[in-house]
Amino acid sequence: MFPTFTIQAPSSSIESALQQKIDNKTKPLGALGELESIAFQLGKIQNSITPDVSKAKMIVFAADHGVVAQGISLFPQEVTPQMVMNFLLGGAAVSVFCDQHNVPLRVVDVGVNAKLDEHPLLGARKVAFSSKDFSQEAAMTSAEAVQAIQAGVYEANLAIDDGVNLLMFGEMGIGNTCVSSCMMTALIGISAADSAGRGTGLDPAGVSHKASIIEQSLQRAEQATGQAMTDWNAQTLAEQVGGFEILAMAGAMLQSAERQTAFVVDGFICSVALLFAQKVEPNVREFAVFAHQSNEKAHKTLLEHFNAEPILSLDLRLGEGSGAILAYPLIQSACVFLNKMASFKSAGVSDSQ
Amino acid sequence: MFPTFTIQAPSSSIESALQQKIDNKTKPLGALGELESIAFQLGKIQNSITPDVSKAKMIVFAADHGVVAQGISLFPQEVTPQMVMNFLLGGAAVSVFCDQHNVPLRVVDVGVNAKLDEHPLLGARKVAFSSKDFSQEAAMTSAEAVQAIQAGVYEANLAIDDGVNLLMFGEMGIGNTCVSSCMMTALIGISAADSAGRGTGLDPAGVSHKASIIEQSLQRAEQATGQAMTDWNAQTLAEQVGGFEILAMAGAMLQSAERQTAFVVDGFICSVALLFAQKVEPNVREFAVFAHQSNEKAHKTLLEHFNAEPILSLDLRLGEGSGAILAYPLIQSACVFLNKMASFKSAGVSDSQ
Repeated sequence: MFPTFTIQAPSSSIESALQQKIDNKTKPLGALGELESIAFQLGKIQNSITPDVSKAKMIVFAADHGVVAQGISLFPQEVTPQMVMNFLLGGAAVSVFCDQHNVPLRVVDVGVNAKLDEHPLLGARKVAFSSKDFSQEAAMTSAEAVQAIQAGVYEANLAIDDGVNLLMFGEMGIGNTCVSSCMMTALIGISAADSAGRGTGLDPAGVSHKASIIEQSLQRAEQATGQAMTDWNAQTLAEQVGGFEILAMAGAMLQSAERQTAFVVDGFICSVALLFAQKVEPNVREFAVFAHQSNEKAHKTLLEHFNAEPILSLDLRLGEGSGAILAYPLIQSACVFLNKMASFKSAGVSDSQ
Repeated sequence: MFPTFTIQAPSSSIESALQQKIDNKTKPLGALGELESIAFQLGKIQNSITPDVSKAKMIVFAADHGVVAQGISLFPQEVTPQMVMNFLLGGAAVSVFCDQHNVPLRVVDVGVNAKLDEHPLLGARKVAFSSKDFSQEAAMTSAEAVQAIQAGVYEANLAIDDGVNLLMFGEMGIGNTCVSSCMMTALIGISAADSAGRGTGLDPAGVSHKASIIEQSLQRAEQATGQAMTDWNAQTLAEQVGGFEILAMAGAMLQSAERQTAFVVDGFICSVALLFAQKVEPNVREFAVFAHQSNEKAHKTLLEHFNAEPILSLDLRLGEGSGAILAYPLIQSACVFLNKMASFKSAGVSDSQ
């Protein structure tokens, strides 16, 4: 059965205590800008005026996508398992940044098209060797979609049971900007021309081709389901045009929120996972801290949809959770100022006149 | 005598080796966005393909300003020494963020209007008890201007002699956004209405008043010098409308650049110090890493003047070097990816097709 989630929105009862604490710090009112909003959000989520994100964890979900057969990526599919190895051996961007910030990294295979050797950092939760080519047929079965979401639920539980108080998600999967753009078009009804972007570096002709594959895939799926895509429920959407790692991220976000735990949204693909999660249970958005605005074209539209103010805007377009881990020290700083700065009273500093 | 500086621009001979190393990392070309530009800049400055910013230091220069007598700040002047104490005791924003990142903090009194007790973290280099009210008379003597700049030179040397490879500067001084706006108008000729902003939180009437004080001060100074402000040299500008902590920061930047050491530019006031430093020796700009775009109105204009892409844009308006220290982990990340990420070859990852 397609999983359901019950997410209680963060309590508003602590809002005034939080705002008062923020405003009494030795700084002009509002002078720490977006850090103040993050501190406020984390305080609400944790229902505490001393929120703590010191125990963070990065989980990178990896999978392959049948639609790469349509030539929508600049890199060959073999790069997915190669990059998984690179994550595990510590050589990828997300690896070195996690190491910089002492954040443990876990990689979860939910659909890589290769047999992967066991590794202490690898979660082996493969649903299938790649999804199907959704330009030709449904991406996955209903059971597979559920299994991918449950993989994310399992991983979120594993982390939270271990005391993790901030989850960060990343993804790896050659072709997954195409899958994400397709899901985004199905979820909020923008055109494929508006949802398709450069991915790992396509030229304009490559982007047009990607958009046409997305259109063709959605037409196929509307015919197959006998429904307009705007009428699809989450399950149908997942089956028709989903990707395993995206569904797993969505499951992890939903479970994180159900357990009142904040999570960090990386770039475009991760934001599409949140969009899907929001279709399943709208309250999930309240638990999302937005790391960055990526260079991928449609990400801006998505962030506006979420009414989100991302922390960074560094023209990143790498995925892997790299933007999330780069934003982590700033999320920590939001807690640091709230927990450690002196107040006007404690420091004996005169307030404004 | 007014100090002179000889700054050799960073060598371009290492550029191709740096770009090649950046492009061979296991990521799509350019996918780390602005971090790649920072890595490139730091590599050039250090003339190394393994730049290192692990030994950073934050120096906060503090001073008072006679022009506060004109009611241009929301906070009373006594807040300057109170905040110096707050820095030293670890309760200010810059203190807690430096502590978060293990960056030593030094506070240098170059003109606080109070007698300060000795403290191991305090550099006692007071030029005077506050500058004069420059709406009525010159802010300082020629000798005082030189002394303030030399205080910065001394501090930069102290740090670099100690092995510091990245300098960060901050400032504290009630009224110093007014002084900075006045210096900016004199330096690049924009109107006071365009250079004056909210500071610690003025309302629109307060901002107008501040702009009118700036106009009045510059008219006075033009009469006193018998020169249009656009004809002033750096020394005249410093004497007429300078601030001790701003001149000290400029001196520290110039010396840092003379010694081929990168430094981080915090917000609006720090950027005005760079603008002044640039008038003294234009090559100084090449050594500046821009931490953030602040909420202070004229900062955007200044960043455009420098053709700078700041790392953060978090609506900060606190000063103290708080934006610089918040950007520090990202500057570190630029070195981390360059020094630690695997290359396509070393990781056995296929490059794009």
